[in-house]
Amino acid sequence: MSTRNKILSLFRNHPDKYLSGQDISRLLNISRAAVWKQVKVLRELGFEIEAKSSQGYRLLVAPDLLLAAEIETDLGTRLIGQTVITHAKIDSTNILARQLAEADAIEGTVVIADQQSAGRGRLGRRWESPPEVNLYCSILLRPKIPIQQAPQLTFLSAVAVAETLNELCQLTAEVKWPNDILVDGAKIAGLLNEMNAETEQVHFVVLGVGINLNMLAEQFPTDLNYRATSVLLETGERVDRLLFLRTFLQRLDAYYLELVEEGFTPIRRRWESLCNIMNRQVEVDGGAGIMSGTVVGLDADGALRVQLDGGQVERILAGDVRLL
Amino acid sequence: MSTRNKILSLFRNHPDKYLSGQDISRLLNISRAAVWKQVKVLRELGFEIEAKSSQGYRLLVAPDLLLAAEIETDLGTRLIGQTVITHAKIDSTNILARQLAEADAIEGTVVIADQQSAGRGRLGRRWESPPEVNLYCSILLRPKIPIQQAPQLTFLSAVAVAETLNELCQLTAEVKWPNDILVDGAKIAGLLNEMNAETEQVHFVVLGVGINLNMLAEQFPTDLNYRATSVLLETGERVDRLLFLRTFLQRLDAYYLELVEEGFTPIRRRWESLCNIMNRQVEVDGGAGIMSGTVVGLDADGALRVQLDGGQVERILAGDVRLL
Repeated sequence: MSTRNKILSLFRNHPDKYLSGQDISRLLNISRAAVWKQVKVLRELGFEIEAKSSQGYRLLVAPDLLLAAEIETDLGTRLIGQTVITHAKIDSTNILARQLAEADAIEGTVVIADQQSAGRGRLGRRWESPPEVNLYCSILLRPKIPIQQAPQLTFLSAVAVAETLNELCQLTAEVKWPNDILVDGAKIAGLLNEMNAETEQVHFVVLGVGINLNMLAEQFPTDLNYRATSVLLETGERVDRLLFLRTFLQRLDAYYLELVEEGFTPIRRRWESLCNIMNRQVEVDGGAGIMSGTVVGLDADGALRVQLDGGQVERILAGDVRLL
Repeated sequence: MSTRNKILSLFRNHPDKYLSGQDISRLLNISRAAVWKQVKVLRELGFEIEAKSSQGYRLLVAPDLLLAAEIETDLGTRLIGQTVITHAKIDSTNILARQLAEADAIEGTVVIADQQSAGRGRLGRRWESPPEVNLYCSILLRPKIPIQQAPQLTFLSAVAVAETLNELCQLTAEVKWPNDILVDGAKIAGLLNEMNAETEQVHFVVLGVGINLNMLAEQFPTDLNYRATSVLLETGERVDRLLFLRTFLQRLDAYYLELVEEGFTPIRRRWESLCNIMNRQVEVDGGAGIMSGTVVGLDADGALRVQLDGGQVERILAGDVRLL
């Protein structure tokens, strides 16, 4: 942990309390000058730190900034977010995460950007990424699984995003096969997971997550061919992005370790309970003609199980699924 | 086709015949000086070209060199090998093919090296790559398939390699699940296929192929923990590397187009008929304990189907399979 990070952590662990320069210097084993210098930097970053003579420093307000130090501090995860890299603006967090992966970055590395100049959704589609309102986040994983199981990570991240939205923001987010998160049918988050593998073994997976938190109606492109929304638009309340991100990373960490230790079944059950079309009549265009049937679940390789009207169960690996 | 390539093609199409500088110049619509210049370059590359006054040029001997022009000329494929890149020595053909793929190289691009300084097998293992005796070759494909089907390409390349060995060199090569080619139990070729994908869609696959053609016994490392061989060691005859490569690429091209058009069944059947353990008793260590049973086939996602002694069929996605 950096010195700045340690000082922030001290402030966070002592809310409403004055910490003298001498105390901080002693606790962290750094000079008084170093304390003063880091407090100055924190103020420049937007932290309001009160200084009272004879009492010391007190943290009044932390800005809604996504700073690596703020994200990492006391995160409590075992794997995800031990290393966090934040950028004010980059082309795409997935691109940087892939480059880091190729350069042997450790598993669990998280890349965050306040703004993306080339945010992408799946199939190369543009993902609108205005500054300071949303989360654009990529997580590097190195699971030791055969490539046929790699799609499980898409469902893992979908569950973690939807549950964080539901518990922290009191929404009723649903997951849409294979990789969208909807609120009342409008897209509130998207996933773009990228994989690099050899013959039968995954090298690495980058989980790319874009979540519309405080985005305003006028910030959405006018030419979207689907409905989109944000937490602010749904609830009327701004979300603390830092709190949301930390809660999401904690949940993702717990579920990922569960997946590694117990396999896909717990995630599959959670995904099915969040799925917008579970047990409902759908029409599937899988390329080889249109079928209709009832969605009955998810397979271990990510295939959607659809029971056709004739009774037999089809496995859908790719294609469009529409509610009837 | 380059001018040099066109001249080579003319020579190849008129074996034992003298072609005058004037004929060549007229047929290819180039100057006499250009003909003379290219003949000079070809001679420097090792082609023996006889020049007889008043009769013209005649190709006597083509060197066993892997030159892009020689590989591409009249290859007759529809997709694979339309672009061929050859290097005397590079780190690894797979690494270059991946870089080309990221830089939007066209599907079917083939990368060849006479020698690799960092040839790799699967799981990061070293692949011995001495100069001028073997084939080190990577093929870039961009199949529009869900990632669960990507392992099909491993079986596709295994079939194309084994059949080329058997038909061109009169060997009895077998395929070993998931990705080796054996002759009498000794490894003669290895495959390292690498994939890059997003959520449910393959971006690209690089088929890496290493085939021991004219490798001598003393060129194998002494510390291999498996038996290895080459065509020369098995048959006592040197293989024309260019002929082998062209035949392999033609077969791969035909099978790949068949896979795209007809699905996996034809490749699966060929693979099963070449498989060294088909219908035989095996022991499987799949991580979760050891099972024994009979190999009954391959699934569409590359899983090996093993019928346990109790009767039920297990799908093996990864693990060690040993003949009993």
